[in-house]
Amino acid sequence: MNKALIVLSGGQDSTTCLYWAINEFGRDNVSSLSFDYGQRHKIELEAAKKVSEIAAVAHEILPIDTFSALGGNALTDDIDVQDEADDNDADIDGSLSDSSLPNTFVPGRNLVFLTFAAAYAYQRSIKHLVTGVAQTDYSGYPDCRENTLSSLEQTLRLGMEYDITIHTPLMNLNKSDTVALAEKLGAMDAMAYTHTCYNGEQPPCGHCQACILRAKGFAEANRADPLIERFQFFSRNRNDKTNDE
Amino acid sequence: MNKALIVLSGGQDSTTCLYWAINEFGRDNVSSLSFDYGQRHKIELEAAKKVSEIAAVAHEILPIDTFSALGGNALTDDIDVQDEADDNDADIDGSLSDSSLPNTFVPGRNLVFLTFAAAYAYQRSIKHLVTGVAQTDYSGYPDCRENTLSSLEQTLRLGMEYDITIHTPLMNLNKSDTVALAEKLGAMDAMAYTHTCYNGEQPPCGHCQACILRAKGFAEANRADPLIERFQFFSRNRNDKTNDE
Repeated sequence: MNKALIVLSGGQDSTTCLYWAINEFGRDNVSSLSFDYGQRHKIELEAAKKVSEIAAVAHEILPIDTFSALGGNALTDDIDVQDEADDNDADIDGSLSDSSLPNTFVPGRNLVFLTFAAAYAYQRSIKHLVTGVAQTDYSGYPDCRENTLSSLEQTLRLGMEYDITIHTPLMNLNKSDTVALAEKLGAMDAMAYTHTCYNGEQPPCGHCQACILRAKGFAEANRADPLIERFQFFSRNRNDKTNDE
Repeated sequence: MNKALIVLSGGQDSTTCLYWAINEFGRDNVSSLSFDYGQRHKIELEAAKKVSEIAAVAHEILPIDTFSALGGNALTDDIDVQDEADDNDADIDGSLSDSSLPNTFVPGRNLVFLTFAAAYAYQRSIKHLVTGVAQTDYSGYPDCRENTLSSLEQTLRLGMEYDITIHTPLMNLNKSDTVALAEKLGAMDAMAYTHTCYNGEQPPCGHCQACILRAKGFAEANRADPLIERFQFFSRNRNDKTNDE
């Protein structure tokens, strides 16, 4: 029996991967894992929990205190996230050079997550890890690239003497392709509860790099974002109620 | 300026590496890092602190909660450590096969430690990591082998876009060579405060695999273990005092 573990951030990409894995391995063989690494926005973990409930797969959250101890990053510390408008070096379609990594870069973050996930998988006889990294991602994080992930897979196989495979179904997809894939896999109900906004806002702020990239993907795929629709629905209901009064 | 970071467990090997690094990079360029990963024996962390004080280098402890959450191992859980006498599969000089890893094996432990250490180093512009792993170690941990460490170095370089080097000065030394190296580097004062015993005893239990291996190394190097001498000294003083009374 092939079992698979999805590293689930609660965002659009990992949620799509969760449905990819259900399609590939069967729902009963799939479980999800999230990390509480001191992220400023606990809403991500709530999103991961909710998405796993909707997908009907087991979900666990593991704490990693160390990232907050390491410090110096906008995702864990009280540092302003760079907005698209402020960030001259960022190219929303291209990659970033070494010197212009955005301040949301936590060095080695995915390496640590996947290594922990591999250790977790080892102890549960799970041989397939699935992660939503994409080298087409605007941010150009070096730990999301194909060559890094291949090297990591090799390191984990050697270091644990364990025949583990890292699957990266979104590696070469752009955001619009990812939206189309999510639609095809029936992930849109769960998509309405994902979290993307770097500023931790709900409804999403709409102006951070993550929100802009997400909106662009849905626009190019010609599909309304179920997350936005959910808030519009609430907002409409609230307005209707106000008008009734 | 070349700065180096030593992953310091507080044991014999990492202490020897600390002195190797001082010799190689100069005391002012060396610092040490330990992980509080829920190990049953906090005495290891006290040893690392004491050793760093004696060596006069900066020392920091980072917490990693996740290993205890992962569970299932004798170094973090309340599971009996296999004694040499009980362990038919263990060969004190040779390597262990996949299926006979001792129950002190935490899968991926060194991979996680070194990845965290690399992230820590990245944020401090440190480009040299030093670790006391040795593939000659009786335990045969796959994450201590040369090919694993080379692969990890490559993964870290790719994943952080950072020119980091992992030094493993003890990789091909046996315990007796390590004792001789420690002596040559002037590490024996610090060696008296290292901790090795898997059962967390002080003075060391003398019968766990770690104690036996350490004793064997000192015996073969024809050198008294400063740690044992320290306790014999205390014990002698206590006896003298008892006799005086």
